[in-house]
Amino acid sequence: MGLRRSGTDKHPGRRQVVSKPPPRPMRYATSRDALIAAGMVALRRGGYHGTGLTQILEATALPKGSFYHHFPNKEAFTLEVIRGFGDAALTQLDRTLAGHPDDPTVGLEQYFLQLCQQYSEEGFALGCLLGTLGQEIGAARPAIARTVRTYLDALHRRFTSAIAEAQNRRLARDDFAAQILADWLANGWHGALIRMKVEGSDGSVRSYLGSFFQFLRSNV
Amino acid sequence: MGLRRSGTDKHPGRRQVVSKPPPRPMRYATSRDALIAAGMVALRRGGYHGTGLTQILEATALPKGSFYHHFPNKEAFTLEVIRGFGDAALTQLDRTLAGHPDDPTVGLEQYFLQLCQQYSEEGFALGCLLGTLGQEIGAARPAIARTVRTYLDALHRRFTSAIAEAQNRRLARDDFAAQILADWLANGWHGALIRMKVEGSDGSVRSYLGSFFQFLRSNV
Repeated sequence: MGLRRSGTDKHPGRRQVVSKPPPRPMRYATSRDALIAAGMVALRRGGYHGTGLTQILEATALPKGSFYHHFPNKEAFTLEVIRGFGDAALTQLDRTLAGHPDDPTVGLEQYFLQLCQQYSEEGFALGCLLGTLGQEIGAARPAIARTVRTYLDALHRRFTSAIAEAQNRRLARDDFAAQILADWLANGWHGALIRMKVEGSDGSVRSYLGSFFQFLRSNV
Repeated sequence: MGLRRSGTDKHPGRRQVVSKPPPRPMRYATSRDALIAAGMVALRRGGYHGTGLTQILEATALPKGSFYHHFPNKEAFTLEVIRGFGDAALTQLDRTLAGHPDDPTVGLEQYFLQLCQQYSEEGFALGCLLGTLGQEIGAARPAIARTVRTYLDALHRRFTSAIAEAQNRRLARDDFAAQILADWLANGWHGALIRMKVEGSDGSVRSYLGSFFQFLRSNV
């Protein structure tokens, strides 16, 4: 199960050093992580119904038994992928907001622009997993709906508190409640991502973000 | 290839009369229309990958041969369903705007509220076909992406011209271009529909519409 990386690994004795680049922790963790990573790409690209076990196994070169060792079924697997995606999104948002302590609106905007950049590198074929599964599955699978909603709500609370903080510091307009403005931002973002996928470009989504943040910062 | 409809067709000689009530005009048109109607429900509910031919045939009680008589494949069928959905949406929008000649913002708002009402009656499990397929398929199937985009663009042009007209008549704020405001409305709507599906209620989407139209009509 070699990773075959085009490496510059001249010091194999140092492979255990924690700060060393990415992959390959323990074998057990690796196959689970590999399955989740492959699932994230597949589910973001094709959605729940468009993702098959065969595809995940091919992408990871793992046997079917390995999948079922870690996950009882496709839905349980999908829930873990959502958690992986959602936790990463929350971490990225927190880190980006923390990186712009002087203006939370800048931190927020940077977070979305980073996502645009990522989606661009992925050729605009993969969007937000929460929006994709929320749209496709909706309430038809309650466990998926509940998990998607948990993360959408957690992100939304952070958008709201960042905007509220900016309002308090007169960096954002306050003629609408922070929660309403966070609604607009999140809804507009998810809607603009549909255009991104259809258009194969991030023109619409960048235009949306530009006008929204111009609006948010005006009239203060 | 019997249609097996519970018919009351006591006058088979009058089957060609164009003005005769809804169902069952000509045999040929009926089976095609029935397939498209069933496809619209299935695709709005389960998306492209979540919709199977078996399901469409069961819903219509038509044989497989009938499907392939009308449509060469699932993609061609889906394109016709999108056209049916998109044409109906444009007609409904035009009619609603025409019904509110004194204020285009009211016509626009009513159009979206009618859709909320429809989605509510459908139990919030079915959303906008354009958003659903745009999100799920994106650019992966160029013909679908192109057709979805054609209708999104046509709707967007009407939103823009309705808002521009309202701006000219000082019924809508004009500190943002009509096209930008139409972007916000359309993106926010599609994003809010994702929440509708996940939450199984239209609370979020109605709240979004309320705040957007309040904003649109303010500052004039």
